[in-house]
Amino acid sequence: MHISELDTPVMLIDLDRLERNIARMQHECASRGLANRPHIKTHKIPAIGLKQLQAGAVGITCQKVGEAEVFAATGAFPDILIPYNIVGKQKTERLLRLTTQTRLTVTADTPETVRGLSAAAREFGGELRVMVELDSGGHRAGVQSGAAALALARMIGDAPGLTFAGLMMYPTSDYVRPVLDDARERLAQANIPVEIISGGGTGAWARSAAAGATEHRAGTCVYWDYNCVNAGYCSVDDCAMSVLVTVVTDACEGYITVDGGSKTFTNDNLSRERSNGYCLEYPELSLARMNEEHGVVALNGAARRPKVGEKIRIIPNHACGTTNLHDYVVGHRDGRVEVVWPVAARGTIR
Amino acid sequence: MHISELDTPVMLIDLDRLERNIARMQHECASRGLANRPHIKTHKIPAIGLKQLQAGAVGITCQKVGEAEVFAATGAFPDILIPYNIVGKQKTERLLRLTTQTRLTVTADTPETVRGLSAAAREFGGELRVMVELDSGGHRAGVQSGAAALALARMIGDAPGLTFAGLMMYPTSDYVRPVLDDARERLAQANIPVEIISGGGTGAWARSAAAGATEHRAGTCVYWDYNCVNAGYCSVDDCAMSVLVTVVTDACEGYITVDGGSKTFTNDNLSRERSNGYCLEYPELSLARMNEEHGVVALNGAARRPKVGEKIRIIPNHACGTTNLHDYVVGHRDGRVEVVWPVAARGTIR
Repeated sequence: MHISELDTPVMLIDLDRLERNIARMQHECASRGLANRPHIKTHKIPAIGLKQLQAGAVGITCQKVGEAEVFAATGAFPDILIPYNIVGKQKTERLLRLTTQTRLTVTADTPETVRGLSAAAREFGGELRVMVELDSGGHRAGVQSGAAALALARMIGDAPGLTFAGLMMYPTSDYVRPVLDDARERLAQANIPVEIISGGGTGAWARSAAAGATEHRAGTCVYWDYNCVNAGYCSVDDCAMSVLVTVVTDACEGYITVDGGSKTFTNDNLSRERSNGYCLEYPELSLARMNEEHGVVALNGAARRPKVGEKIRIIPNHACGTTNLHDYVVGHRDGRVEVVWPVAARGTIR
Repeated sequence: MHISELDTPVMLIDLDRLERNIARMQHECASRGLANRPHIKTHKIPAIGLKQLQAGAVGITCQKVGEAEVFAATGAFPDILIPYNIVGKQKTERLLRLTTQTRLTVTADTPETVRGLSAAAREFGGELRVMVELDSGGHRAGVQSGAAALALARMIGDAPGLTFAGLMMYPTSDYVRPVLDDARERLAQANIPVEIISGGGTGAWARSAAAGATEHRAGTCVYWDYNCVNAGYCSVDDCAMSVLVTVVTDACEGYITVDGGSKTFTNDNLSRERSNGYCLEYPELSLARMNEEHGVVALNGAARRPKVGEKIRIIPNHACGTTNLHDYVVGHRDGRVEVVWPVAARGTIR
């Protein structure tokens, strides 16, 4: 079957590009002496995570317990990091259950999180690996100083059922460097070994290496997206994800409308560019506006334009958000459908 | 079970408010002589659609074939409108199959759509009701003039397997009035009866009545949301939907972070307000920023603030987009869990 025969809207993955991106991600890490721990939030598909392991990744990163449960249940992911404060009795018990299936590491940035993890470990009877998160300047999580990192590392080391596993930051940034350096110095003086320094962010490999990280977590670069093109991280020819849509009307002058809107592409216009996506077959057009099921494409005076009923591919601005809206993806090579993968870890919202 | 015992993030529906909102929607229509045809895109749950029928709705509105299939399959929805150009052989065949289960009406704004619908009706052997969409000023779909509406109505009337069913607009606006009035006059002169004039939009009941519409489609007002509060359509006490989240850290001064971000709430900040949602228990706080799994709540100098581990409810900016992210909702009365509904028509992206 050719992708042009598929009903729309449908998410397409170019498998050749996917594999090239996975190899590049591995190379960007390995060539800098960084272990590669790809973030699966971008694809949420175990078969793709497995390709990343086969390329040389040391393990994977999941952003929530539900994602880790789906990946661990396949039996193919022996090392999972959740770089998040897991809080609340229900979730910490689920975490501990996961330790029977995979080598699990989580992070903490407050004494409350550490106390909750330790209580769960004691009750369940397991051992949990815990890293300390440093604030990288996003001010959404992370300790604020080297002194706070040392205090929390000590607390983790002293807490029954917990092991201090290192330091984590997202993204690896210039902002975090003084805190990271201070934390490492204080931990060294206190004779507390720092097994892992985990950096993150698509495009931040070099910063992770410069900061002395031991591993790097990147997500988006498995697919790339139009935000990354606009940021200069890749070209449109690297983008493995697109959404096939159908032109449903040309009744409004200057525009055509396609059958995918914000419930197909998200409103995650991270780079604040004029277009909400890149039209593969008609690069001179732009996805100007979206309602829930309408994508309004500006013709921008172009002479060549798709007809009503024609199917076109749009590279989304934000791959991770778009993945989260789709229940399955169609993998193809040169347009020939090769595989249909459920987005298995979607919907595991908790 | 009390909602405070639920794991987070989870979508909550206050059933008392839901039922009050359904009654109000019915009253807003009936008191103006409008038939009520609620749009189910906001909830995507057949059990709620049924409550709307029981309150007096003449039928429902679905935005796509996949939604209509889910609702029709329950056997409880004998009258469904899809106000959209259904284009492409696969979808038009699915449409025709639906006509064996429900009284189905769709819309068109180009000859291409009409030809496709007629071809499918002839091939499948059924009759499809088709309305003409008028552009209400959104420039996403709809014919541009009364003359174009008349021409398309004639084409529908002449097309084998199709019946002209009336005029549709979204939202009912001042912009559309001259075109609507002109279309009605031309259709009257041509002796083409206009069975239905369908208006739409939460808060646009009065405009539909003034425009001479026979029915009205509203969606969001089944739940309301923070955008509607900001628009002056309702108060926060009317909002039936909230999302229960847990505070996961207070490590960053001036902020706390909750375990719901753009993959829980969407980035649909329609009203461009400062906050991405309304914190029910702490109205002085604001959902300032979101990453995918982090919701960064600004404390705004408030003395009273939730602790790490505390669960709080946030009314989302956009109810419809938020629904689309959740696989189920928890219905409660005064906090007591009464029902868990799958969001049955979510994921039926086509």
